[in-house]
Amino acid sequence: MDFQITTRDPSSKARCGLLCTPDGHIETPAFMPCASRAVVRACSPQDVAAAGIQVVMCNAFHLLIRPGSEAIQQAGGLHQFMNWPDLIATDSGGFQVFSLADRSDITEDGVSIRSPLDGSAIQVTPELSIQVQNQLGADIIMAFDDCTPYPCDHGEAARSMERTLRWAQRSKAAHDNPKQALFGIVQGSVYPDLRAQSARATVQIGFPGYAIGGVSVGESEAEMFTALDAALPELPLDAPKHLLGVGVPAQMIAAVKRGVDLFDCVLPTRNARHGLLYTWEGIVRINNAQYREDSRPLSELCDCPACTHCSRAYLHHLFRMEEAAAWRLLTLHNLRFFAQFMQQIREAIGAGKLDELHARVAANTGEKTGGEGGKTT
Amino acid sequence: MDFQITTRDPSSKARCGLLCTPDGHIETPAFMPCASRAVVRACSPQDVAAAGIQVVMCNAFHLLIRPGSEAIQQAGGLHQFMNWPDLIATDSGGFQVFSLADRSDITEDGVSIRSPLDGSAIQVTPELSIQVQNQLGADIIMAFDDCTPYPCDHGEAARSMERTLRWAQRSKAAHDNPKQALFGIVQGSVYPDLRAQSARATVQIGFPGYAIGGVSVGESEAEMFTALDAALPELPLDAPKHLLGVGVPAQMIAAVKRGVDLFDCVLPTRNARHGLLYTWEGIVRINNAQYREDSRPLSELCDCPACTHCSRAYLHHLFRMEEAAAWRLLTLHNLRFFAQFMQQIREAIGAGKLDELHARVAANTGEKTGGEGGKTT
Repeated sequence: MDFQITTRDPSSKARCGLLCTPDGHIETPAFMPCASRAVVRACSPQDVAAAGIQVVMCNAFHLLIRPGSEAIQQAGGLHQFMNWPDLIATDSGGFQVFSLADRSDITEDGVSIRSPLDGSAIQVTPELSIQVQNQLGADIIMAFDDCTPYPCDHGEAARSMERTLRWAQRSKAAHDNPKQALFGIVQGSVYPDLRAQSARATVQIGFPGYAIGGVSVGESEAEMFTALDAALPELPLDAPKHLLGVGVPAQMIAAVKRGVDLFDCVLPTRNARHGLLYTWEGIVRINNAQYREDSRPLSELCDCPACTHCSRAYLHHLFRMEEAAAWRLLTLHNLRFFAQFMQQIREAIGAGKLDELHARVAANTGEKTGGEGGKTT
Repeated sequence: MDFQITTRDPSSKARCGLLCTPDGHIETPAFMPCASRAVVRACSPQDVAAAGIQVVMCNAFHLLIRPGSEAIQQAGGLHQFMNWPDLIATDSGGFQVFSLADRSDITEDGVSIRSPLDGSAIQVTPELSIQVQNQLGADIIMAFDDCTPYPCDHGEAARSMERTLRWAQRSKAAHDNPKQALFGIVQGSVYPDLRAQSARATVQIGFPGYAIGGVSVGESEAEMFTALDAALPELPLDAPKHLLGVGVPAQMIAAVKRGVDLFDCVLPTRNARHGLLYTWEGIVRINNAQYREDSRPLSELCDCPACTHCSRAYLHHLFRMEEAAAWRLLTLHNLRFFAQFMQQIREAIGAGKLDELHARVAANTGEKTGGEGGKTT
């Protein structure tokens, strides 16, 4: 992987970059929708690419369970299995594994869980997660981390962060595919000292890119940015930085201003399936009765298939019937919004207009659109 | 509506035709997938048009319940509401109304049912069905008929057929949109004398096209063709003829040879959602474990999005996860098969090769793919 910073914002730490891998390249800042099970739910990979999305985030744990990482390796890896033309990242699966486990199931070795498919015992370790991710063959893969619960006292947060460091070393040692870039993950809950310590120690282990984990798990926005402000300055300026699970547009710009390059989150796709659509004219909740006879498109400013071909009345009708066609069309709309949004961030960095965009985005996506734990699909 | 026969098969009653309405024209024989609720399930109208489908069948009863025929009239009719570029037919809704009613709820006036939405009482009459269909604004609409149950003795079948005739007269009297072609419906269960009598009397009332109803409801294939052979010769040679609810490929060719021009059926779309795919190489049941690592497309001979972009292994994975993306891709495959199949029927009529196509289709779609009552979505 090669990461080149192409433009720097004079008034913040925001930057545009070009992230190149053997499979292609993307411009950053970039957003990765969740394709946990090798599909952005309700959409085909071709649909998602047509929306202007260049990278998706799949999940090692979901794919280990089904169809199995060997089956995907057999198909030639995730790119071939999905027939996805651009970049792919995989999450280590830690978040899902921890959501299935009690804290008592966690040892220094790893996490013991039961397969959600057949109840069989699985010992998930850093080595297994990396082996699975090596088999899946994504461009960017993640170290297996100890997902610190929230709320969490300082002592427990410190122990969890230190275990994450030991697992980061084991993840790096297990990593066996030079075509893939393994990112280290910074933990430390809401404690600035732990976040800074985690960042410094993760950099000492040494990775081509870094992710900030354990945010957007229920803490306040102020706590999240305090954690970011403690961790980010400790990370190498020129390395790509990924903020895991954050997809609230105004928060994303605030993070970009702090030097974040990559995002993934379930919000745009999950919100779409729940009828919440982002537009440059404001949030649309398509289930509302006011749209029953509304012949206008969702947004006059969008060129997605839903806005090009469908009235709000028709989308309202499909959504009320719980039609899979609605989930797809609405998901493609939100993905198009996010693709355009990232494009506008990149243009604003070049033009020094990030504050202007921030105000506009905060005004038009202002309805509470966040949520606890953005990582599940 | 204008219907012109363009080619006749020298060795059967099969013919190709051009059916023109103010909204466009289609070549016949043609197949209409079910879009009961103004959508072919899991697909956008643009998807369906891209599959080569030129006409869809919506349902007056489903659309009366939701979103209401006035809402669709307000939107400018079904064509505008769906943004569907080609032709639309509507079913009278009789089949769904009768499925909600006891025989005791049926009087000479119509059928009393409770709304499946809110339990309110609805008296469905020929006049209401036609009013709703006039509001929906499809190109082809259907008379409201008494759906004869199966099995049914000769006396009851005769009474039901005679009521259908009286309702056909009331349907014709209520019809108030000269842009729409109202088709009369032939009933008479499995009894040749009743089928012939129904056909003659329906022709006496006079319609621009005729449909054969009450078939594919549980009777044997032989009984169905006996009924068809009794009814079809009594209908005007030059009028378009629609066989309601039949979508088994080999049966469709057998019906084309008897002079049928139009078909509608839920089978290709419902079968797709259940993982049964039609290909020129034979039936594929995509849920089967044998496809787990099969990198080939569903069919080498198909140009649908599923066959162009996806391996069987990927479709198997999506289908096993009950992914809406699978329902769409598999539906588009079966629709493409049916569009190509109808195209091949039209070419075979011109080339005198209908028997050859019949043998090929029977061999490749030979698995039991029919079912009782093809009309629901």
